[in-house]
Amino acid sequence: MRWARYLVDGKETFGIINGENVIDVLGNPFDGFQQTENTRLLSSTKLLAPVMPRTFYAAGLNYAEHVREAAKKLGRSPDLPQAADIGYRAINSITGPDDPIIVPADATELLQYEGELVVVIGKEARNLNEDNVLDCILGYTIGNDVSERTWQKGDRTMWRGKNTDTFAPMGPWIETEFNLSEAMTSVRVNGQEKITFKTDSWIFGIKEFLIRMSEYCTLYPRDVVWMGTEGKTDNMVHGDVCEIEITGLGVLRNTVQWRGK
Amino acid sequence: MRWARYLVDGKETFGIINGENVIDVLGNPFDGFQQTENTRLLSSTKLLAPVMPRTFYAAGLNYAEHVREAAKKLGRSPDLPQAADIGYRAINSITGPDDPIIVPADATELLQYEGELVVVIGKEARNLNEDNVLDCILGYTIGNDVSERTWQKGDRTMWRGKNTDTFAPMGPWIETEFNLSEAMTSVRVNGQEKITFKTDSWIFGIKEFLIRMSEYCTLYPRDVVWMGTEGKTDNMVHGDVCEIEITGLGVLRNTVQWRGK
Repeated sequence: MRWARYLVDGKETFGIINGENVIDVLGNPFDGFQQTENTRLLSSTKLLAPVMPRTFYAAGLNYAEHVREAAKKLGRSPDLPQAADIGYRAINSITGPDDPIIVPADATELLQYEGELVVVIGKEARNLNEDNVLDCILGYTIGNDVSERTWQKGDRTMWRGKNTDTFAPMGPWIETEFNLSEAMTSVRVNGQEKITFKTDSWIFGIKEFLIRMSEYCTLYPRDVVWMGTEGKTDNMVHGDVCEIEITGLGVLRNTVQWRGK
Repeated sequence: MRWARYLVDGKETFGIINGENVIDVLGNPFDGFQQTENTRLLSSTKLLAPVMPRTFYAAGLNYAEHVREAAKKLGRSPDLPQAADIGYRAINSITGPDDPIIVPADATELLQYEGELVVVIGKEARNLNEDNVLDCILGYTIGNDVSERTWQKGDRTMWRGKNTDTFAPMGPWIETEFNLSEAMTSVRVNGQEKITFKTDSWIFGIKEFLIRMSEYCTLYPRDVVWMGTEGKTDNMVHGDVCEIEITGLGVLRNTVQWRGK
């Protein structure tokens, strides 16, 4: 099942994608819902980020090659994480599919994409174990963890380097059926492939993160966990179209719009 | 004006404190409200954290003596922040006044309080300046940024060291009238004063943080900004009652409850 989120008369509405159409529901996938008779064309519906999270978790460094590349960029020696220690991002940075990535005029040229799998929590959960850990997941979507590397390196925290408004495009929808073991993540800029990697070639997996997180922290419906990215990332410039595709989850497409250019 | 938040028949309700009473409102201080005829005794009303934030911002190291003490604890040399770079905490960690601070059984003895002023954002804001920066603030409350120093030092992020469930008590209410320049922050454990400092003796003030944050990030109603703490902090043990008082804002009181003790 694919869940989309959009506005109807200015009001947040969830809908179920059915082929080329979207069926409005009353309610939402987190608290319960009821299908309506209202159907609209998917292609003419402006989708929002498919969920506005309660807490926005991010794995950060979670793929070996990306850890080495990140260390090189920051002029540090690579330091592979020893445990599934989660990090945080800010809600203001989230934007939807096809929305522009709006880059402040004072950003440097080191403005880069990061294609990530996003886990969407559907049920409150604490003290998860191997057997029940996946039960709290509603589904999966795609994230682009846009990063300004100069700020990421120079600031004391990653606040504006990764959390500037529109630096976290997410979407296009939440897919509840997902075959992780066969999934590939691809990043394209202006149609040119920049990197393709096996989505689950990470250091710590979804189960390891959720089990460890839930030993200390209650997970809530609408929480999202961004799982990190692999490899070297390149600069984007004004007008670039960045597409992230994950097998079975669709394509998240956003255009870079640099203020003052 | 003092805003309290509590449950009425299981439903989130805001109320205005009037002497020993609380007057229920319809709506809330963020989106608009209307007073009702319903009044309840403040002393017999179980208060919740006065707001459940959208984004939970934290200044982190923002008082000179605390930076030196924190560096000593972590075995690093002190590094005074050069700019008002904000950090993030997680919503799950928030708990209310008089709620227990529930400490996981595997925490070490380095479980410490941090008394902080909390700024509550009331209006959406972007690109604030010296003249209008304070207009987006609804009011002020108190936070206790409970920290397990072993985890804070050993984990790759501060996730469980500062974001374990109940590690962020906040309250008791939001005060809209506040005389910052005369305010003192005091921390008491079991009635014994541990530290008292001038609340605004920080490195970067509220204006500096909000102006800088809003240059890149839209601030939203219900966002909170925790302003950091001063000085050396001490361990708390099972049964300790920790009180944070800030002049004019009341007392935030919580008891330490260590699992398995």
